[in-house]
Amino acid sequence: MTGRELKTVSEERQAQVDAVLDRFFSLAKNRALSFGPAYVRLWETLESNTVGGKRFRPRMVMTAYEGLGGTDFQASAYVGAAFELLHTALIVHDDVIDRDFSRRGGPNVSGKYRDIATTAGIPLPGAEHRGMSAAVIAGDLALFNSLRLIDRSGASDEVRARLLEIMDDALFASAAGELIDVDFSLATALPGVKDVLTMERYKTAVYSFECPLQAGAVLAGASEKAVACLGRFGREIGIAYQIVDDLLGVFGTEAETGKTTMGDLREGKRTVLIAHATTTEAWPLIAELVGKADLAHHEADFVRDVLTTSGTRQFAEGLARDYTTEALTHLRSREIPAALRAELEPLADDVLSRVR
Amino acid sequence: MTGRELKTVSEERQAQVDAVLDRFFSLAKNRALSFGPAYVRLWETLESNTVGGKRFRPRMVMTAYEGLGGTDFQASAYVGAAFELLHTALIVHDDVIDRDFSRRGGPNVSGKYRDIATTAGIPLPGAEHRGMSAAVIAGDLALFNSLRLIDRSGASDEVRARLLEIMDDALFASAAGELIDVDFSLATALPGVKDVLTMERYKTAVYSFECPLQAGAVLAGASEKAVACLGRFGREIGIAYQIVDDLLGVFGTEAETGKTTMGDLREGKRTVLIAHATTTEAWPLIAELVGKADLAHHEADFVRDVLTTSGTRQFAEGLARDYTTEALTHLRSREIPAALRAELEPLADDVLSRVR
Repeated sequence: MTGRELKTVSEERQAQVDAVLDRFFSLAKNRALSFGPAYVRLWETLESNTVGGKRFRPRMVMTAYEGLGGTDFQASAYVGAAFELLHTALIVHDDVIDRDFSRRGGPNVSGKYRDIATTAGIPLPGAEHRGMSAAVIAGDLALFNSLRLIDRSGASDEVRARLLEIMDDALFASAAGELIDVDFSLATALPGVKDVLTMERYKTAVYSFECPLQAGAVLAGASEKAVACLGRFGREIGIAYQIVDDLLGVFGTEAETGKTTMGDLREGKRTVLIAHATTTEAWPLIAELVGKADLAHHEADFVRDVLTTSGTRQFAEGLARDYTTEALTHLRSREIPAALRAELEPLADDVLSRVR
Repeated sequence: MTGRELKTVSEERQAQVDAVLDRFFSLAKNRALSFGPAYVRLWETLESNTVGGKRFRPRMVMTAYEGLGGTDFQASAYVGAAFELLHTALIVHDDVIDRDFSRRGGPNVSGKYRDIATTAGIPLPGAEHRGMSAAVIAGDLALFNSLRLIDRSGASDEVRARLLEIMDDALFASAAGELIDVDFSLATALPGVKDVLTMERYKTAVYSFECPLQAGAVLAGASEKAVACLGRFGREIGIAYQIVDDLLGVFGTEAETGKTTMGDLREGKRTVLIAHATTTEAWPLIAELVGKADLAHHEADFVRDVLTTSGTRQFAEGLARDYTTEALTHLRSREIPAALRAELEPLADDVLSRVR
């Protein structure tokens, strides 16, 4: 996910999440010392891949928590930090699967360790594998400890059990989505719009929106109905977000997204845009260009023009709008306090403002 | 680890662990159904990589548990199964790191998915990467759920917290060991005996012996002293086991180990044997052969002869014996009931019988 900052939860809450993560990494690095400096470095690398994010998932947790009357911000900071670590684990392993060595313009865990190996004189295929090996290990540590942080939240037994189930749902869905994504990249046939939406929902939206919102609500002791409403809101808005991400990946500016807008096209990434484009008469015009590794800028402009004139861009924008509208209906439940609704509605506005 | 069957815990206890794992996988596969048949197949593949093992770690848990007076075999079966899943996660990811596509003579998760891709017409580098991608995902699921099984053991809050800490120790050490092992395989200088022992201890012995024994003791409500004694016994016997594994990897028979005795030599695996051999005058005779990918059988025989006549084999056997002897001293504590000692001593005999 990319995008502008959202201002639904105070900076103070963010600082509390950061404090939990700081403390977690300090303890881990200290503990790693007795295993040798190389292990400390792995933890430092994992930490540097965790900081600097938008803390988006913790915000979802804390917005739901505070909006539903929660007052123990230490507990919610732990649960927020747990989702942040889960996110770190998933992107570190996703990068292994995608053979990516950078993220947000800098080297990721794989990239850092590949570079260390290269500097040590190890030639590239071996150095890359070394980078990926370190990333497999680092992701395992982040994944395992995401559950551990839930345990340290101090929540009651019953609440803790529910939170662990929600984390479980998050990983279960994300693994399913990652598997579908791997299959997409190997299949010769291009997936349809529905398949892409399903994949994006499982892989990212569930653990980024649906589950963090539910977790915040459960921690606040909200009613089952409120938890369910927030979950449904999260599901729909999460899908909308992914569609917008697909749009920005092709039509965004680097200033907006922080990454090149050539990447998705050169990779031939299976997005909602491409899935829709294959169903239009214009597809033969761009079929050879989508996935062309050395796609030139003027060729990318041509693809963008075709995606626009053929109606694909408009289709995706409309789809994002529909999911956003659907998401908002779930906030209208009486179970959702007006103040929480007022916190979450800007999220929807934000989605729409990103596409228009 | 390889080796003969140990008969320290009844078949009945094993069946209880198997029942927990059966139930866990049944539930997961059922839940995966709504995500599509590909996801069910991933769970089936993970399950088939979990069954058929020696259930060694569950045995350690249950031996300690029963020997220290535990009577809730359902609870100990859950804790045992948790360690089995942790083991599965670690070997699945270790195989990704080692680029291994088989284990115990059949395809592992990576191999299974590589083969599916190959059959679907995907050429080898892509098919292998596909296999490794599926294995990253499957290992994540196993790792995450190892903690979840502890939660389902029904242990009291305090005991559960201790068990989770022990699982945490297990993963923390194993990740450190895996990282050292990755560094070994890339370093030009060969590691010393001490470094190899440290790596083997962290990577395998801690989670296979030390932690499962401690977990069984904690679950049984044993004294801190008893937990510590079993931990120390586990540490020493675990190192002894690894040394024996190194010996069997070169001098064993396929009937004993279930794998080729050419693998370690062809791979140039950093074992206690090789670490010691580099310190002997005979090393130049075999330096070129260790790590020779197409090592012939008569060359392997030559290496074995040199390792024997130069005293390396004897050194490793002596080392295994020393660690075993040291391990046994920790069982002599008054905190260890005679019946438990009688259960665990054969484990030590077994180590020694494997080398001689």
